[in-house]
Amino acid sequence: MSRECNVLVAQSGGPTTVINASLAGVIERALMEVKINRIYGAEHGIQGVINERLVPLHQIFSGNKDRLNQLKLTPSMFLGSCRYRLPHFLEDISDYQRIFQIFRKYQIKYFFYIGGNDSMDTMDKLSAYAKQNNIDIAMIGIPKTIDNDLMGVDHTPGFGSAAKYIASSILEVSHDTFIYNTKTVLIVEIMGRNAGWLTASAALARNGYSRAPHLIYLPERVFSVSQFLLDLNEQLKHHQHVIVAVSEGLKDECGQYVASKNSQIDQFGHVTLSGVGKYLENIVQREIGCKVRSVELNVLQRCAMHISSLTDIEEAFSLGEYGVEAALLGETAKMVGLYRIANNPYRVSYITIPIHKVANQEKKVPLEWITPEGNDVTEDLIDYIKPLILGEPSIYFEEGIPKYIKLEAVLEHKQIYQSYF
Amino acid sequence: MSRECNVLVAQSGGPTTVINASLAGVIERALMEVKINRIYGAEHGIQGVINERLVPLHQIFSGNKDRLNQLKLTPSMFLGSCRYRLPHFLEDISDYQRIFQIFRKYQIKYFFYIGGNDSMDTMDKLSAYAKQNNIDIAMIGIPKTIDNDLMGVDHTPGFGSAAKYIASSILEVSHDTFIYNTKTVLIVEIMGRNAGWLTASAALARNGYSRAPHLIYLPERVFSVSQFLLDLNEQLKHHQHVIVAVSEGLKDECGQYVASKNSQIDQFGHVTLSGVGKYLENIVQREIGCKVRSVELNVLQRCAMHISSLTDIEEAFSLGEYGVEAALLGETAKMVGLYRIANNPYRVSYITIPIHKVANQEKKVPLEWITPEGNDVTEDLIDYIKPLILGEPSIYFEEGIPKYIKLEAVLEHKQIYQSYF
Repeated sequence: MSRECNVLVAQSGGPTTVINASLAGVIERALMEVKINRIYGAEHGIQGVINERLVPLHQIFSGNKDRLNQLKLTPSMFLGSCRYRLPHFLEDISDYQRIFQIFRKYQIKYFFYIGGNDSMDTMDKLSAYAKQNNIDIAMIGIPKTIDNDLMGVDHTPGFGSAAKYIASSILEVSHDTFIYNTKTVLIVEIMGRNAGWLTASAALARNGYSRAPHLIYLPERVFSVSQFLLDLNEQLKHHQHVIVAVSEGLKDECGQYVASKNSQIDQFGHVTLSGVGKYLENIVQREIGCKVRSVELNVLQRCAMHISSLTDIEEAFSLGEYGVEAALLGETAKMVGLYRIANNPYRVSYITIPIHKVANQEKKVPLEWITPEGNDVTEDLIDYIKPLILGEPSIYFEEGIPKYIKLEAVLEHKQIYQSYF
Repeated sequence: MSRECNVLVAQSGGPTTVINASLAGVIERALMEVKINRIYGAEHGIQGVINERLVPLHQIFSGNKDRLNQLKLTPSMFLGSCRYRLPHFLEDISDYQRIFQIFRKYQIKYFFYIGGNDSMDTMDKLSAYAKQNNIDIAMIGIPKTIDNDLMGVDHTPGFGSAAKYIASSILEVSHDTFIYNTKTVLIVEIMGRNAGWLTASAALARNGYSRAPHLIYLPERVFSVSQFLLDLNEQLKHHQHVIVAVSEGLKDECGQYVASKNSQIDQFGHVTLSGVGKYLENIVQREIGCKVRSVELNVLQRCAMHISSLTDIEEAFSLGEYGVEAALLGETAKMVGLYRIANNPYRVSYITIPIHKVANQEKKVPLEWITPEGNDVTEDLIDYIKPLILGEPSIYFEEGIPKYIKLEAVLEHKQIYQSYF
């Protein structure tokens, strides 16, 4: 039997709206390549490799352009995800033996892992193991994370769509707040525990008639409740309605999460954490006494495909394609990424970065992009984010709700559950 | 000076995404009518009449079809809102004297009030006062409320868009939940304190591959935490991921809000109230111990124009037009509304209802549309809601965010602040 040349792809970490666009890019490019025989997807990331849960993506998508396009416009992970931290192979080799046994069995020549910091750590370790053992498999990481906190790239796929959701939602809840002729404070809590990129994107809600959000607090700066109340009172002098964007990860001068002050210990000794938004709402209620409400945007900011950025989707797709290109050219132990050539008009180029330069690091908002007062972001930061939210995809709707796809349903439909299932 | 024949229109109560579509319908139809000279809008509902805050909508929108279309696609109240309860004129006549003095001054012949239960109460009282005093002003109510709880009509404008937002969001957060290979419960808290229509609309998230939400609890039925845990355990036997839709207004057998049990005393001795979703999340965490998360859809369900129902927008607009028609035909003390002629294909007719039959009443979900177990809705209820969420409007986007309009900005632009401002 002649040796096949197969692709394996998997997804890992937290969801974004465009992580399937990257998967679609990998599949589309790999299907076009005569050198490649089969394309497998591992369910639930690296765990699906360990557990031999592989699905034949070539069967599912070959000759089905519509389905591939639907995958491109489906949020979250089509293949499922995991949060599994590989031990280093010098500590425990068993996972590695198992993973490379599966690679051999399925004749995998190219492995693509779509994920964030932790997934790049996995790829870094697998690459090191392959190198040490002279195993010739191209290992390419494809970035994704709404948090935009990956080093070595201009921005991450998933961020632009989350930013567009956040900015649009802030504008809409501002319209909701404008209506009553009474002093009102609205606090919007936004994801991003350590990096403030998502919270900063609230600034894109501003337009010709609205300055909301009037105050923005990122986790890169120490948060002081007393200063916040001073800032708020100042804004309330000038505006009937004040909208505030806060990061879930705000910390006080002792480095303690502000939200943790709102915690209770349950019977198991676990801390239940309500958000910082609710915490600040209660403080405003008590200290200022005006009408106040808090809104937590929650997981919708990472899965609301219906208001995603077309720029983001297309970049994520192209990064998937580019990953395959890079692998075919013999690159390995690399992450593909985006480099911004120009901002106006916006242009990017596709690059590869040694994966060890990315793994386990975190890119935060530079302090010079936060105003000296610590309660707003600068125009430079707004200019940086602005091109990333442009364009709206044409989402399919069926009976009034978005039409997405799900792996289990596709497998049932194609009846391609195989022996290894 | 010959007597003019002018229109006054105002908006009141809580926001919906389509309350401006009704306003646009009133304006468009009134602009076309040769009998009508001017169209005034009162800022902040009936309080704007009392305070003589009238804006010349004929100046703002005449000959500007684009702007009128933008109004139609802007969420929340363009004219602002109020929550002001008129005393009955037998108790206190001063508001009535003031309101009818303004009507005389601006030569108002037709008054339109776009609102919910309370606004119809205002119209009922104003109509009674006009009748008693032989004042010839047509008083027409135009319904709106996301809660769908108005009597005498098939459904209310605003409900369909909120239902579409809820169903689409449930589908998207389900995709977000599906990804991990661990037992997971997601609880989604939905608006509607007394009527369960909005929570019921979560059922429209179900499609060919997803039964989410697996459990639905409406406020029309007594909620028992122990039964909820039994229901949940049963679902967890069959499904890896269980999505639960709960109304914010769930009450226990004593008629007490379930959410009110969630109050905590913070470090300053103050009570903070989180929602029923958070409350149930903590219980599931404790009693079942699996991964659990709660999401509160919050105000976005009433202002997310970007995923509104085209059917809803068009009906709201037509009800505005129809209100003007009815007034021109001499009707008064009426609310306009929708009557469903057929469901498949969906057809409605436009009707008028004596306003006193609507005011201060509340239409709840019929108990026969809730399953005997009390944890789901019937197909009849789904069939009832389904046509209302159909169709997607073409929202304008500018620099990646929706393009809406705001009264203050338009007034500044037109420099039409007048002497009476």
